[in-house]
Amino acid sequence: MTDFTRALPGHMYLIGVGPGSPDLLTLRAVNILSSVDVIVAPRSSASSASLALNVVRPHLNEPEVIEHVYPMERDNDQTARCWAQMADLSVARLKQGQSVAHITIGDPLIYSTGAYLVEQIGHRIPADRMHVLSGISAMQAASALIGEPLLTQNDRLLMLPADNLEAVESALDHCETLVIYKIGARFALLVELLRRHGLVKKSRLVCYAEQKREQVFFDLDQAHGERLGYMSIVIVHIGHRPWE
Amino acid sequence: MTDFTRALPGHMYLIGVGPGSPDLLTLRAVNILSSVDVIVAPRSSASSASLALNVVRPHLNEPEVIEHVYPMERDNDQTARCWAQMADLSVARLKQGQSVAHITIGDPLIYSTGAYLVEQIGHRIPADRMHVLSGISAMQAASALIGEPLLTQNDRLLMLPADNLEAVESALDHCETLVIYKIGARFALLVELLRRHGLVKKSRLVCYAEQKREQVFFDLDQAHGERLGYMSIVIVHIGHRPWE
Repeated sequence: MTDFTRALPGHMYLIGVGPGSPDLLTLRAVNILSSVDVIVAPRSSASSASLALNVVRPHLNEPEVIEHVYPMERDNDQTARCWAQMADLSVARLKQGQSVAHITIGDPLIYSTGAYLVEQIGHRIPADRMHVLSGISAMQAASALIGEPLLTQNDRLLMLPADNLEAVESALDHCETLVIYKIGARFALLVELLRRHGLVKKSRLVCYAEQKREQVFFDLDQAHGERLGYMSIVIVHIGHRPWE
Repeated sequence: MTDFTRALPGHMYLIGVGPGSPDLLTLRAVNILSSVDVIVAPRSSASSASLALNVVRPHLNEPEVIEHVYPMERDNDQTARCWAQMADLSVARLKQGQSVAHITIGDPLIYSTGAYLVEQIGHRIPADRMHVLSGISAMQAASALIGEPLLTQNDRLLMLPADNLEAVESALDHCETLVIYKIGARFALLVELLRRHGLVKKSRLVCYAEQKREQVFFDLDQAHGERLGYMSIVIVHIGHRPWE
């Protein structure tokens, strides 16, 4: 198995730092973060500081820190250019024998900017020098706050973003638990949809799980009129499928 | 926010210890495990030791350890009786003012024995004394080993057990990524199904991620003839759904 006790020269680490609380980092992430040469931290153009960087800061041991602003717009070309730049920069450092960690909120393989880096760097360094460190995802943090199982026995769970409400509606027939990411401005329409299906009372809303602005709603109607951000999740408990 | 720096008297902690490597514990889990009075660890009747207990052992500070054998059979009555016993025992300790941690492999809310305890204990202690600590799930550990994003942009991910292959087949039309848990003896039939849909080359198999017996197959055909256990996962990359 790979040695994760410290960051190795020329190795790239894609690290999920969890939803926001520093104590939700894994020990493996702490070991790498405290020994790595270079940290690359994405920052949305809207924020003054990188959320992921704030989470890991207590564990850093004076690495070089490169914060980079990434476009929040869904301009695929601009986004691709931005990540290509970060990939070039990372590969240059790796070839100089430095270790590089790219940090990202949540899990790096679940709706994450990390996906771009995997695509851009993956084929440019040896496979055994590219490592992904899982982090607690928003879905897990939200369900832990709610305290209800996500799925048991034969249940199916379906995860999707709120953007396409047609997809949300059709998903209701194909799972026992539906997890809807990135609620934001879609909330009112989503509640309407869930009400039509008699599912409002079986739904929970968690905003900014494990961050300062955290809010948990066991009753969606109590969130009426709230301005929800991007980091909001609705979990719908549609039913159960026991063993046959 | 809740104080997770140490285990509090009369508080119950349902802790996901991750897939198997001790360094995939979160700092929060370590803080609670190193200060808790009682640890309850499930052990399958087939094994000589609790896997979850082995993961956390380096962090324990001489708590009382209660290992209990749970039935692996799908006898719902027997299973319910077993968990009712564990719930009684836990509640008794909590009422004496002890702190109790129940540990479980992976995440306690994803296909986990933890679900039984939430149901059995949830209504018997005050809600603010019951805590769930998320753990890295098998799906995350498997995808990290593979090094491919689980889902990006508008993708839908569907998670289900391999038991019902009809459900697996119908799921192919409703997601971009399919994660199939608990492969075991269903493997050959599952590969046949994936081949019919032209998806064998887009599928990966990970067995016992982050455990001693770990195996990663980028090509399902190379796993032909292997005897796969319960802790095996297939991830199928069906496609992508970009932003509209």
